[in-house]
Amino acid sequence: MNFKGKDVVSIRDFSKKEIEHILSVAKTMVPAAKGQEISELMKGKILATLFYEPSTRTNLSFKAAMLRLGGSTLGFTDAKGTSATKGETLADTIRMAEAYSDIVVLRHPQEGSARLAAQFSKQPVINAGDGAGQHPTQTLLDLFTIQDELGSIEGKNIALVGDLRYGRTAHSLAHALAMFDTKLTFVSPRTLKMPGEVIRHLEDEGAEPVISDDLESVIPDSDIIYVTRIQKERFPDPAEYIKVAGSYRLDQDMIKNAKQTMRIMHPLPRVNEIPPEIDATVHSAYFRQAFNGVPVRMALLALVGGVV
Amino acid sequence: MNFKGKDVVSIRDFSKKEIEHILSVAKTMVPAAKGQEISELMKGKILATLFYEPSTRTNLSFKAAMLRLGGSTLGFTDAKGTSATKGETLADTIRMAEAYSDIVVLRHPQEGSARLAAQFSKQPVINAGDGAGQHPTQTLLDLFTIQDELGSIEGKNIALVGDLRYGRTAHSLAHALAMFDTKLTFVSPRTLKMPGEVIRHLEDEGAEPVISDDLESVIPDSDIIYVTRIQKERFPDPAEYIKVAGSYRLDQDMIKNAKQTMRIMHPLPRVNEIPPEIDATVHSAYFRQAFNGVPVRMALLALVGGVV
Amino acid sequence: MNFKGKDVVSIRDFSKKEIEHILSVAKTMVPAAKGQEISELMKGKILATLFYEPSTRTNLSFKAAMLRLGGSTLGFTDAKGTSATKGETLADTIRMAEAYSDIVVLRHPQEGSARLAAQFSKQPVINAGDGAGQHPTQTLLDLFTIQDELGSIEGKNIALVGDLRYGRTAHSLAHALAMFDTKLTFVSPRTLKMPGEVIRHLEDEGAEPVISDDLESVIPDSDIIYVTRIQKERFPDPAEYIKVAGSYRLDQDMIKNAKQTMRIMHPLPRVNEIPPEIDATVHSAYFRQAFNGVPVRMALLALVGGVV
Repeated sequence: MNFKGKDVVSIRDFSKKEIEHILSVAKTMVPAAKGQEISELMKGKILATLFYEPSTRTNLSFKAAMLRLGGSTLGFTDAKGTSATKGETLADTIRMAEAYSDIVVLRHPQEGSARLAAQFSKQPVINAGDGAGQHPTQTLLDLFTIQDELGSIEGKNIALVGDLRYGRTAHSLAHALAMFDTKLTFVSPRTLKMPGEVIRHLEDEGAEPVISDDLESVIPDSDIIYVTRIQKERFPDPAEYIKVAGSYRLDQDMIKNAKQTMRIMHPLPRVNEIPPEIDATVHSAYFRQAFNGVPVRMALLALVGGVV
Repeated sequence: MNFKGKDVVSIRDFSKKEIEHILSVAKTMVPAAKGQEISELMKGKILATLFYEPSTRTNLSFKAAMLRLGGSTLGFTDAKGTSATKGETLADTIRMAEAYSDIVVLRHPQEGSARLAAQFSKQPVINAGDGAGQHPTQTLLDLFTIQDELGSIEGKNIALVGDLRYGRTAHSLAHALAMFDTKLTFVSPRTLKMPGEVIRHLEDEGAEPVISDDLESVIPDSDIIYVTRIQKERFPDPAEYIKVAGSYRLDQDMIKNAKQTMRIMHPLPRVNEIPPEIDATVHSAYFRQAFNGVPVRMALLALVGGVV
Repeated sequence: MNFKGKDVVSIRDFSKKEIEHILSVAKTMVPAAKGQEISELMKGKILATLFYEPSTRTNLSFKAAMLRLGGSTLGFTDAKGTSATKGETLADTIRMAEAYSDIVVLRHPQEGSARLAAQFSKQPVINAGDGAGQHPTQTLLDLFTIQDELGSIEGKNIALVGDLRYGRTAHSLAHALAMFDTKLTFVSPRTLKMPGEVIRHLEDEGAEPVISDDLESVIPDSDIIYVTRIQKERFPDPAEYIKVAGSYRLDQDMIKNAKQTMRIMHPLPRVNEIPPEIDATVHSAYFRQAFNGVPVRMALLALVGGVV
């Protein structure tokens, strides 16, 4: 399997076999990701990180990945002050970035921008989130986490919880999980339900997702509870938000009937969805999940850089 | 020729022989600039990039240059939040930077600031643009590009087009090109003509620049068309701007009588001066020109750092 | 003495012996700090620099320290655009940073935040200033400078001058100097006097600080004059500020009776407290003091990183 020079725009561009290969390479990156081993796989190479909107976690995790591989990084963390404000097109900025680097990471508020960038760049482009579009490295690190926490992804009971309507994380992850024959449950308030289009797609792919609005009843059977943030801005009525947010809050009482092996994941940052009391329980996997961004992104950089 | 510790403030500080030496060193840097070879010439060395105003392209290109030499960088990308806002003088900030680095790159809105910085710094200072003043590394990369595209600079027909009144790029480049016995043509709307002072200087240096406001008629004889951006803000009357911008737009029709070997250059970012349809023609050299910023800046860093 | 994994939150956490050890390690770092030697002590290691408020000098000096040790850095320079604006707690941001790095440097406007961060982080946390709280690396570089300039700290006459009320630098430094049996004099306008609480603390530790508001009379006996900035904002009446600032301005005339070996220090940035005419005198030590931030921070990074 040769990933050299390949763009990473959408998780849909990867077959199950390719995803498994990425995850297995990521596993080998863990010691260097922890700073326990020194890697020089990307020595002399430069990663350009073009963030047209801030995303500290994704940005720092890509940088850490490149640095842990012995490479270096340059770029910007928001669009202000860049040539975009002088009227430069994204295509031209990308051509600048490719002239100064070996791999380009792009975060952009506009859907489709990563695909466009990939068309113009001779260097591989990795999509770090394009608006309501794709965020494939988040999906890959989520898959890696499930595999790492449970031993395998195949056949697990996985509940996606929270804002399933606007949350792009949930859509991409659901698609990828369907490839692994998981049993999916979508838990959300009625106004934030998984879009019918996404569900039909999943059914076409052979999945049989269960829809629920009762989080508590879903927990006992779940292997993974994947929580996403419910944003206040989605609710015209603040009282409605408070009510909803309360019933999707994963406190101690809520998880008292969970399996011992059940793991809670969250793409972070969290606000009130998971209270700090959960952090010390055996169920919390979200901090390890955040770390997993590093070995997974190391694997991708090394793969598209053609050094593994 | 020893450049160790030398400041790079103005292209006027360099003789033709020195410029030729920099260009020949730059040529040897190309493989490492492309990431095809690993250089460790500046290993352990730090470049401070002090940008008092944003200039993404220049900033990233200096960083890429230092990283490609195996060195590292630190600095800031705008003045906000720096000690300057607490009332610190430029002299004191420079003395801070020299304490933390081996070479200082300065971008500052005020003319003369790079010269001042060079006086206070024990480390070499490279001017990355000081207001209406100098931008010598841009001139050097322009010369490198002409040489690389045409085989030599000597005796070529070179047209500078656009805003020749306020564009500092054009003034410095014209001076440097005069040293290489080129035939210069200045093409601009009447309100944006090359200043008389610059022209007299050039004539003192033996050049005989031709003045024109008709771009189309200049193209057939030109080896290089160097386009600069015409800024809307220069025109009190928007209608006047639209008319002018239209007649200095370099589209397919305009260049149909150009020599096959003619090359179009632009310091970038461009807006409407060169439409995307030109990108795929044999004439477009501006993306290679952008890349050339890396080997040329690598050469300067290595030279003033005393490692080549 | 083993510092591996230790947090650096307050200078009060260190014994005199430990401080002396840090200073002696710092001394060995000077050649690499100047770029005269190449160190790879922290090769493959990452320093996270989390600056919730801008502090260019401290930030760049920590970066220089890590780079001079062969390591690399990532982080942010102000809170804007970070997850904090999405409601993430400091504890969660710290857990992100520790997942992406080996050592975390924190600058935060809120007192106590570094202590909190240290509790949540598995990686060592270094306090780079927490509001009115502590700034231990500033104190260490001040001590290093005194030792380096005078040969030793023990028993010297040291005057702290300026805003001793709000200036946290002065409080921490006074505490540390008391450990070295120095003779302390506190010189300030009456409204900016050293707080009684700090003085009582010092007396408990055996110091007998002298209080003065007459800078000129203090100078002849002093070995070190440590000047801090008097901020206009502290004075409701601008006329009062101008009067006060004038009498704490250290000009040529003021220091004419100083010992030849007397050294002037300042944490920088300075504004009017020390005019440029002093820079060229034998007394000015503040630029060397700024440089000393690099070897001292190198020593701390190498010590808590467990590599020296």
